[in-house]
Amino acid sequence: MSMRIVIIGSGAAGMSAASSARKASKDAEITVITEDEDIAYSPCAIPWGIEGKTGWGDIVMHDPAFYKQTRDIEVLTKTKVEAVDGEKKEVTAGGKTYPYDSLVVATGGTVFVPPIEGKDLENVFVVRTVRDGKNIQKALETAKNVVIGGAGVIGLELAVALKEMGKDVTVIEMMDQVIPRIADKDMADMIQKDLEGMGVKFVMKAPIQAVKGEGKVSAVTAAGVDYPCEVMIFATGVRANLEIPKALGLDIGQLNAVIAAPTMNAYRRGRLVPDVYVAGDLVQCESAVMPGATMSQLGSTAVRQGLVAGNNAAGGCKKIFGPVASPWVSMVGNYQIAGTGLSLGLASWYGIDVVCGKATGLTRARYYPGGKELVVKVLADRATHRIIGAQIVAGEEATGRIDWLTAAIIDKRTAESFLADSENAYCPPTSMVRDVVLSAVEDLCCKLAQ
Amino acid sequence: MSMRIVIIGSGAAGMSAASSARKASKDAEITVITEDEDIAYSPCAIPWGIEGKTGWGDIVMHDPAFYKQTRDIEVLTKTKVEAVDGEKKEVTAGGKTYPYDSLVVATGGTVFVPPIEGKDLENVFVVRTVRDGKNIQKALETAKNVVIGGAGVIGLELAVALKEMGKDVTVIEMMDQVIPRIADKDMADMIQKDLEGMGVKFVMKAPIQAVKGEGKVSAVTAAGVDYPCEVMIFATGVRANLEIPKALGLDIGQLNAVIAAPTMNAYRRGRLVPDVYVAGDLVQCESAVMPGATMSQLGSTAVRQGLVAGNNAAGGCKKIFGPVASPWVSMVGNYQIAGTGLSLGLASWYGIDVVCGKATGLTRARYYPGGKELVVKVLADRATHRIIGAQIVAGEEATGRIDWLTAAIIDKRTAESFLADSENAYCPPTSMVRDVVLSAVEDLCCKLAQ
Repeated sequence: MSMRIVIIGSGAAGMSAASSARKASKDAEITVITEDEDIAYSPCAIPWGIEGKTGWGDIVMHDPAFYKQTRDIEVLTKTKVEAVDGEKKEVTAGGKTYPYDSLVVATGGTVFVPPIEGKDLENVFVVRTVRDGKNIQKALETAKNVVIGGAGVIGLELAVALKEMGKDVTVIEMMDQVIPRIADKDMADMIQKDLEGMGVKFVMKAPIQAVKGEGKVSAVTAAGVDYPCEVMIFATGVRANLEIPKALGLDIGQLNAVIAAPTMNAYRRGRLVPDVYVAGDLVQCESAVMPGATMSQLGSTAVRQGLVAGNNAAGGCKKIFGPVASPWVSMVGNYQIAGTGLSLGLASWYGIDVVCGKATGLTRARYYPGGKELVVKVLADRATHRIIGAQIVAGEEATGRIDWLTAAIIDKRTAESFLADSENAYCPPTSMVRDVVLSAVEDLCCKLAQ
Repeated sequence: MSMRIVIIGSGAAGMSAASSARKASKDAEITVITEDEDIAYSPCAIPWGIEGKTGWGDIVMHDPAFYKQTRDIEVLTKTKVEAVDGEKKEVTAGGKTYPYDSLVVATGGTVFVPPIEGKDLENVFVVRTVRDGKNIQKALETAKNVVIGGAGVIGLELAVALKEMGKDVTVIEMMDQVIPRIADKDMADMIQKDLEGMGVKFVMKAPIQAVKGEGKVSAVTAAGVDYPCEVMIFATGVRANLEIPKALGLDIGQLNAVIAAPTMNAYRRGRLVPDVYVAGDLVQCESAVMPGATMSQLGSTAVRQGLVAGNNAAGGCKKIFGPVASPWVSMVGNYQIAGTGLSLGLASWYGIDVVCGKATGLTRARYYPGGKELVVKVLADRATHRIIGAQIVAGEEATGRIDWLTAAIIDKRTAESFLADSENAYCPPTSMVRDVVLSAVEDLCCKLAQ
């Protein structure tokens, strides 16, 4: 009998796991079970879907028929998992039982909505699924004023999208900066200022206290002030979906997510569970920067974890998911902002004393027309001089540079060794002769020597 | 008495050395001697200067007055070095003698012009200095047909610039591909095809035999055929200027350039010369890819070598110039082309058996509008699986990615370890969820496993 692999969840992690399992095993029976109606789409694309910059049909890469025909993978949509039994090794969903030899749990996360009055009123949304996006789009047809709860990356991308649709947008944020946690205030402030220039309003250091309205939302209260709106969207961060992991008795870690082995196996009471794998937003993994746990709720991470989980679940030549620096990038307004490794905020969680270097330049030679601002900040651990994080704000070309700096973190480079050994490609239309990344690390080395 | 530092040459290497020497020593006497009339300019910018995209005044970053006022550096332009005496430690230039404690030789290179009939006719140029650029610009005023000798990066950049000026451009190349030596044929052919689409004509596998004309050039003969033209430009590669190194008795290496120690000191009869440094296009340095000598005639390398040479010449806390992968990038036509480490051609010089991986994708998510083609090729040594080179052809965003791959070469990554450990930042407007760089290395790992 051929091996039976059941995958719960159809996002980047689940579908990557399914494809990877097929690659590793020609004859395994692979079944994907999902509550969602759409599969294999990019939640990161939803702000642009709402704006209409990309069609909903384009965001969804493939449908179940594609997986059936090209990869012999069965995908059951709109199917709720009713029970999982780790002893009998079976999943019950839509009234049917699916026995498995390997199970991959990739049920992702859910937008955290604070438990406040009025959060269930009509026209109050979260942004996670294509369905959410379509519902928001519909509600916006008759709305002028929109409040977004949370100034993280998704909140800001939404704010720009709605502003470009002509809405009056107010972003309410609990912390004193946008993109808290993963960006430093000096870098984040550049973005906030740019978005303010576009007309986005910000209410900072203001926890949301209530959503008001009769049936429908009419205002959001934060720090004692009412902000009138016809639509309210929570973009307040994602919490791991732990229902199924808990039903399986899997170990949950310090960060309230499922602890994963390098093979992406889960644990039960401290022992590796050989037939259960996890991947995606519900995983707690290891940091590449400092010894300790971290979350990496990124589409790119979900794909990488899915590839490892699916391959190993199918008995492929064993693969390993290493520790992560979690590089990220976003385009909001006139800037790209990108980061990797630890921000000042994250570093303080590890108790690290940080030294920062920073440089400002252009994305092209000074004399070449069209060059855009490029600000690079690099963080090092004062004790070891290791590069532990970096952030970039730029008019263009941030992505490759942050991937380069990510490699420095993964390779455990000190600032000094990075500066001595690193080379950058140069031509006037694409960079300065000495790239701003190197100038920032040079500044960092000076600060470390003080 | 304060230390006396003499620097010969005022390009990227010489002026970086001067500034770095000043940083390392507050009271050194620093004198730069150059035959050129302009200093501290980017020769890489000359194609765009000719086209008029950038002004000649913009290309020249600083003038001698700037260096005098802000850094107390004496710069003598249009001053020919008549003699150097390594025993007495003095340089004679413009009839005056300059004694030195440390000497930095940064006299760069000269465009190689084959010793053929007619090469000295009027309107036959090389492209190296701002003066060359201005002369070419003037000659082009009355010219319609231009022949460019050599399809290297500078030749192609010139071809595009002249085409955009409305000229009829023919590029004559000895080899069977553009950008020979540092790019592979499959990648180079994309560029050639694109430029042909713009109307640039190519004559391949055709060594230039003669330049014809009465006083002025009227045609160029290659492989037996005459190509009529009113202007001819040689872009046939740069040879190290060895006159001064030879006068000093410095050791010249296998690649016909000056052998440099990691400190950028020169050698004489196999012994390090403690008071003579070299930097820039005349240097033979060590490869980061394979044990052995290499040339790195790049602006970015010149700056890095200049910084080390100047610092050490001034007695600063000793710095080291490491082995190089020599990343490069160029923007020609609709594409950027970039490379690092060894091409197939260079690898064959080291006798290496190469395995290649390749992937094609986009610079943005598939559904996000405006994404451009992105082709990544990665080369590994079959024996060790080490990544030894990479090339990118892309509509945008090649630079950061090639710097990232350069780090992999410098860190001596195998294809497998790069694939397992590397992460990429992702958002729909700036990348695919799995960057094409990783897909190319994945393909490489499959090929290596076969």
